[in-house]
Parts: sequence; C-alpha cells; structure tokens
Amino acid sequence: MQRFGFLFCLLLAGLTFTPARAQDRLPNLVIIFADDLGYGDLGVYGHPTINTPALDRMASEGMKFTQFYTAASVCTPSRAGLLTGRLPVRSGMMGPRRVLFPNSAGGLPPEEITIAEALKTKGYATAAIGKWHLGHLPQYLPVSNGFDSYFGIPYSNDMSPAHNKGEGARNYPPTPLIRNAEVVEHEPDQRELTRRYTEEALRFIRENQSKPFFLYFAHTFPHIPLFASSRFEGKSSRGLYGDTVEELDWSVGEVLRTLRELGLAENTLVVFTSDNGPWLTQHLNGGSAGLLREGKGSTWEGGMRVPGIAWWPGKVKGGQSTQALATTMDLFGTALDMAGVQPPTDRVIDGVSLLPVLLGKADAVRDEVFYYRTGDLWAVRKGPWKAHFITRSAYGADPQVVHDTPELYNLQNDPSEKYNVADEHPEVIAEIQAVVARHNANMVRGKDQLQPTL
Amino acid sequence: MQRFGFLFCLLLAGLTFTPARAQDRLPNLVIIFADDLGYGDLGVYGHPTINTPALDRMASEGMKFTQFYTAASVCTPSRAGLLTGRLPVRSGMMGPRRVLFPNSAGGLPPEEITIAEALKTKGYATAAIGKWHLGHLPQYLPVSNGFDSYFGIPYSNDMSPAHNKGEGARNYPPTPLIRNAEVVEHEPDQRELTRRYTEEALRFIRENQSKPFFLYFAHTFPHIPLFASSRFEGKSSRGLYGDTVEELDWSVGEVLRTLRELGLAENTLVVFTSDNGPWLTQHLNGGSAGLLREGKGSTWEGGMRVPGIAWWPGKVKGGQSTQALATTMDLFGTALDMAGVQPPTDRVIDGVSLLPVLLGKADAVRDEVFYYRTGDLWAVRKGPWKAHFITRSAYGADPQVVHDTPELYNLQNDPSEKYNVADEHPEVIAEIQAVVARHNANMVRGKDQLQPTL
Repeated sequence: MQRFGFLFCLLLAGLTFTPARAQDRLPNLVIIFADDLGYGDLGVYGHPTINTPALDRMASEGMKFTQFYTAASVCTPSRAGLLTGRLPVRSGMMGPRRVLFPNSAGGLPPEEITIAEALKTKGYATAAIGKWHLGHLPQYLPVSNGFDSYFGIPYSNDMSPAHNKGEGARNYPPTPLIRNAEVVEHEPDQRELTRRYTEEALRFIRENQSKPFFLYFAHTFPHIPLFASSRFEGKSSRGLYGDTVEELDWSVGEVLRTLRELGLAENTLVVFTSDNGPWLTQHLNGGSAGLLREGKGSTWEGGMRVPGIAWWPGKVKGGQSTQALATTMDLFGTALDMAGVQPPTDRVIDGVSLLPVLLGKADAVRDEVFYYRTGDLWAVRKGPWKAHFITRSAYGADPQVVHDTPELYNLQNDPSEKYNVADEHPEVIAEIQAVVARHNANMVRGKDQLQPTL
Repeated sequence: MQRFGFLFCLLLAGLTFTPARAQDRLPNLVIIFADDLGYGDLGVYGHPTINTPALDRMASEGMKFTQFYTAASVCTPSRAGLLTGRLPVRSGMMGPRRVLFPNSAGGLPPEEITIAEALKTKGYATAAIGKWHLGHLPQYLPVSNGFDSYFGIPYSNDMSPAHNKGEGARNYPPTPLIRNAEVVEHEPDQRELTRRYTEEALRFIRENQSKPFFLYFAHTFPHIPLFASSRFEGKSSRGLYGDTVEELDWSVGEVLRTLRELGLAENTLVVFTSDNGPWLTQHLNGGSAGLLREGKGSTWEGGMRVPGIAWWPGKVKGGQSTQALATTMDLFGTALDMAGVQPPTDRVIDGVSLLPVLLGKADAVRDEVFYYRTGDLWAVRKGPWKAHFITRSAYGADPQVVHDTPELYNLQNDPSEKYNVADEHPEVIAEIQAVVARHNANMVRGKDQLQPTL
C-alpha cells in the first residue's frame, strides 16, 4: 500500500514538475571544452588533490567515457576536428607549424561546415564563448562560422606580449578580447576570464530558453599562464593549476544549475571534455594524464585521450562508465543526429553519432581512432589494438622514429602502453595496415592553413 | 500538495522499512581488504578498463579517501598494523625478511590486541575470512586472536608448490585451506576462492544479524597467481588481472546488497581498502598506482597509498571525496570509537578514530604518516610535505641510498613525487626532523617475529 502510494507520488511529481514546453523542442547542446586538461586531472578520473565536485556529480548523474579522444594533440587542429566532425588534416587545419599564431593569416576554410552552421538550418540559437583558435582575422571568427555571437580571446593565452618578455620573446600584439567581431579590450585581466565567460554563458542560456540552442563554451584554462579569480586563487591543494581547474569545475556547476533551474536539463545534452592532454613540459603548471603515457603534443594516449562526460537527465542514465570509443569529432555527428540534420554528402565526415551509446541502445559506435601529428598519420587504433608507425616524445629533442614494424600495444590490457607486443601479433599489424590503406585511399588533404603569415 | 504527499510517502517508507531494532544496537563493522590492489585500479580512482560498478557506487553513496595509507608496503606488516592499530615495527611484525613464509615459526604476538579482541569486550560476533598472513601456526591463527571463526588461506597464494616449480623452487608444503584452526583442504581450486569466501561472508552476516558483528574480509586477490571463477575469467578488458578485480567488485556488491536486504545498512560501517600498492614487477599481472610513483614494496606513494572507501548509509554522507589523511591503523581507532571501547593505555596506539571525518564533524584527524620499510623509518609525511630519508626502488637491484639531506616533496601539489624541493625548504626539513626525533623517543621496537623458521 505504501509502495503504491510512493510510486503514485513519483508519477504525479513527474507529471507536475516537468516543463512540457521544453520537451517538445529540439534538444539543446552545450559543449564545455577545457584547454590542456589531462586525463587524470579530475576527481572522478582519479586526481587526489584537485577538487571537482561539480564534474564528479555530473559524471555520477551521467555517463563517464574512459576512451574519449581528441582529434589532435594540440589546440588548433583539435578544435577544427570537433567543430567540423572531420580529421583536421582534411580541412588543412593541421601541419608542421602545429597551431595558429597571432601572425597567422589562415583559419578554418569557409567551405567547412561547423556544428553551429549545421544547427542553424534548424533554427538553433548559437554562441561561442572563450578560446577560438581557428583564425583571428574577421573572416575566420565564430560569427563567420555559424555562431550568432562570440565573446572571448581568439587564441592561446600565452600568445601575449605580457607573457613573452626578455630574450627570444616573440613580437605579439596585445591580446584581444573580442565580442562578436570587435576587439572590446586589450590585455584583459586573465584572472577574471573564467568568471566573465561563465556569466556570458549563463546569460546566453537564459536569453535563449524558449528556443533550441547550441553553446560552444571553450575555456582559456588550464592552459598556461595560469590565472584564477580571487575566490579560487590559492585555494586548491594542487596549487595554481588546481585553482584554475577548480574554478572551471565551479563554472560547470553553474551551467548545470542554471539548466536545472530553468527546467531545461531534460532537454539539454551537456558534454564536458578537453582539447588535448596535459602540457607536461610545464611541470607543476601542467596537468596529469593519470596512468596514460605522455601528454599534449604526442600521439601516445596521454596526448589525445581526455576526460569525457555526458549529462542529459532523463535521457542519459546516471552512474554509467563506458569503455565505448568516442572522439570529439563525434560531437558533430551527435549534434546533427539530435537535431535531425542530414550529414553533408559532399565530403568525408569522420565523426559518428554517439546517441546510440548515450541512450543505451548500443555498446559502441566506432572501433577505430586515427592519431595524426603535424599532418601525418602516426598511429591507428583498431579495437583494443594500437599500432604506432611513427613515434617521438611530445616536446623532446629526440628525433622522430619511423618504425619498419610498427610498435603494437593492447590498450585494454595495457593502458599505459608499456609492452610492445608487435612480435606476437603480426596478424593484428596486417589488419591495421589494411585499415590504413583504406583510410589513405579515402584521404584528401586540405591545403595547409597554418602556414600563411601576415 | 503533491510535494507534501511526496514527503509523507518518504516518511512512511522510512518508518515502515527501517528495522528499528538494528538501530539500537552497537554498529557493525565490515573491513574488506584487497591484496596488492593499486591506487589506480578502480573505476572511481581512474582506471579506464577495469569495470567496478559496485565499488564506484559504494564511493558515490559514501566517502572516497584520496590519501588513505597502509601501515606498510608489503603484506604481513600491513595486516599487523590494520588489526592492532600500531605500526608493525612495534609488534615485531616487520623486518628484513619482509613477510612470513610457510617455513616461518613466528606470528602476531599474543600480547597484541586486535580489533576483534577489543570488540569481543562488547559482545561482538567476529569472523575473519580470506588471507591471514599473521602466522599460520595454531597459536597465531585468527581464532587465537579474537575471531570466533576463520575460513581461508593463511598466507599468500603464491606460497604453494603448484606455483613454485622448476629450478630455484622453494620447498613449500601444499597450500592449506583452513576452517577455524583445522586444515580442511589442500591446494584448493583458487578459481573458486573469491566466490567461496563471499558465500562465507554472506552466511556470517545473515547468521549474526541480531547482534553486533565485526567481519574482517581479506581477499586473496589480485595477488599473483591470478585466478577468477568461470563467471569472470576472460570477461574483463584488462585481462586476467581485471577479471580478479571485477570478481572482487562483485563480491563487494554482494556484501552491500545483503546488508541492505537485511535492513543492516544503516547500522554497518563498511570500509574497502588494500594491503599495499600494485606489484609492478609482475607487469600485466600486477596493478597500477595511477599517477602515484612506484608500487608495492616501496615507500614512494604508490607503495603505501591505496583506495579507501567508507560506506554507512544515513551516517556517512554520500558523494564525498576527502583529502583527509587516513591509515589502515585508524580502523582500529575507529572500531573502538564506534563500539565505545576505551583504547589500551599500556602501549602506543598509532591509529586514531576516523569517525569525526566520516560523520562530517572534522576535516582531518591526523597530519602525519610514517613510512617504514624492513624495520627502518624511510620517510615521513607532515601535512603536505614528505621527506625521504632513505630511498630505493621497490624490487630493483639498486642499492638503498641514505640521504644526508632528505628528498622533500609537496604531495598536494606534486602527487607523483617528481620535484624534490629540499633546497627551497630547509625549514620544513627541520620541522620533519623534529617530528622524527619525537617519534623515535617514543619508539619501542618489538622483537622481529618474521625471522624465526621452523
């Protein structure tokens, strides 16, 4: 009897409190993108002294991916991959220069289709907040790429005269803070950036609560130089690096809280991830890849496998950890799938939709990952196996080594890439070489957009 | 109105389903102790391919410690420390021989007081299940140390003729499976051990549900040689090591489920931890310390910092991660505190009660950790700082190095012990040296119990 009463109450609560109007609309998408945050830098991914209660809770209410990959191990190509669903080598957003600089003349080619452009076809409100790094000239800015608005610093926060002093300093212009296409401040106080970005994000969500929206929220931190607001500076056990991650965690909490308060949570997929692994050469100012090998800049797992958390109350079941392979490029496929947009057929799209995994309808949607570095294919994962054709440390003085027989690791059994088992599994190498041959046959490289300078 | 109805249902459910009688009794204690499980080997501590849904859920319903230490980095002294609340060097359960072997004549001295003996003074039912390793001669077995019953293998599962064959093999007797003080089987099928131990644990809980009880459940795995039952063998992505951990996770889930079903959950503190870090020289048959340095056998963090999860629904608030320092010896202090037993005053007790942390009444109860190896003090932690007086790899051929100036690490900022900052902080070293002087003044070493052989 009490049991029935209890169930009845739950049913009534469901009927009463769910905002019916939001449920009829196309679902919202929020992508929160950290900069240089490593696989091991959150509580729920095992860090002992960085406190991330909001992200830990987001994971316990949603799905935690343990095999979530970026499209590249450095900033510019990683972001190009996420927004276009394509390996950055296809758009020319990857090359020997690695990323765009303040003297770069290039950017994301206009013929590329971003998530924002795809969702605009369904009437989504779209905003980009934070770091862009896909071209800072007007024709490359977010507002030229499907976003209704933009607020942020258009490239990395170390590309500033304030942080390039003394001998060997590069002659950078003052760091611009841009609103839409206009520079509204020079050299903004970086301690205030996370807070200001967050206020901007909450305002966008509030102002667009009555239509479907897409928010691309790309934080400036924990990329160096590290800054946190007075509320967070000096607070983390992990030092300044931890301060910036804990402020970022606060920011995530604010976004989720606002979605809940506005009754939008059950109609909004929020994905949190990072653009690449930790910048290990920054020592304590860089993060941790946990048990993964190497970090930012490399094609070892620590360079390209990052935290990935998906949250969508009522749709994504809580408390799940999945080993399904996923990439940031799949967010393109997922966005189109959610909104019912047909993927473009005139180009290769590398991303697939993660919805079957998110909604519990499939255990996996891909079994291959391609690890490119500076325009070349260095490694390929197929199921549990990863073959390295070329290896080199991330930022070391060691030369790159091209392997006649690739190094082979079983990433499921040996996640730290310690034991090369190439000799025991020639058949696996042959299988991966066939994958590479198919992949190469289908590969049209875009013209290098990182090379031209002003 | 619906809200009130909802609350009323919750209240009714509470009144109806909570077994009032259990709440009036002294609380139960269950300690689940893994063998050689590393800091990084559970999902909730960041492992990507070992599936531990029960332990992840236990953490999300309870408190996850990120700075939980063992009393030693190998088996015998670690267990002596947990059960007596005293550094094992005090009881003589630590020395150059490291652990007890099948030819050892020693064991835990009868004058030591175990958690079981302390709780017997309050009428607790007590059981030890699994690996003992505090002496296999009758006078040292659990039933001579305050436990009503015992079922398990009295030492490590590799101390068996079946796993010591060929050249250099030690002449071990057949592995005994003991019930109480009687050998009931020789060379039991190790694939069945976790399942049989678990059945024994559930039976003990069911049979003692009407009185306060203490269960010390010390698993044989993931110590090598690795074995899992047919239900788990070959199932984990992480290979046989993962199979054994996933079976252990199943076992934890069974214990918690049984406590819930019997209405005992709200009167039972369950603590899960490990006896020491991962046995790295076993390669893929050993575990991972995540981002911590080194493993089993060493006084680097990976040797002695392990997972620590506390669960007590209604008492320990769920979803908490704490950086409070804690040690397995504190389980002695906690047990006595829970049961209202006065600690012995005729000896030094190193463990303190964790109840203030567990119940949210204090952020910390200790700020020092002592790292002993083979009977000597190798390192000391004070707050965030750890000074290494002696270093050596866990099982390497390198000699031990005694440092004139100790190596100094800030474990909060630098959890991986990468950056020795001794030169910058002579004042911290002086402070830790004062701690050591006080500690040594208070140290009476027990006679080495690991040396005598049969």
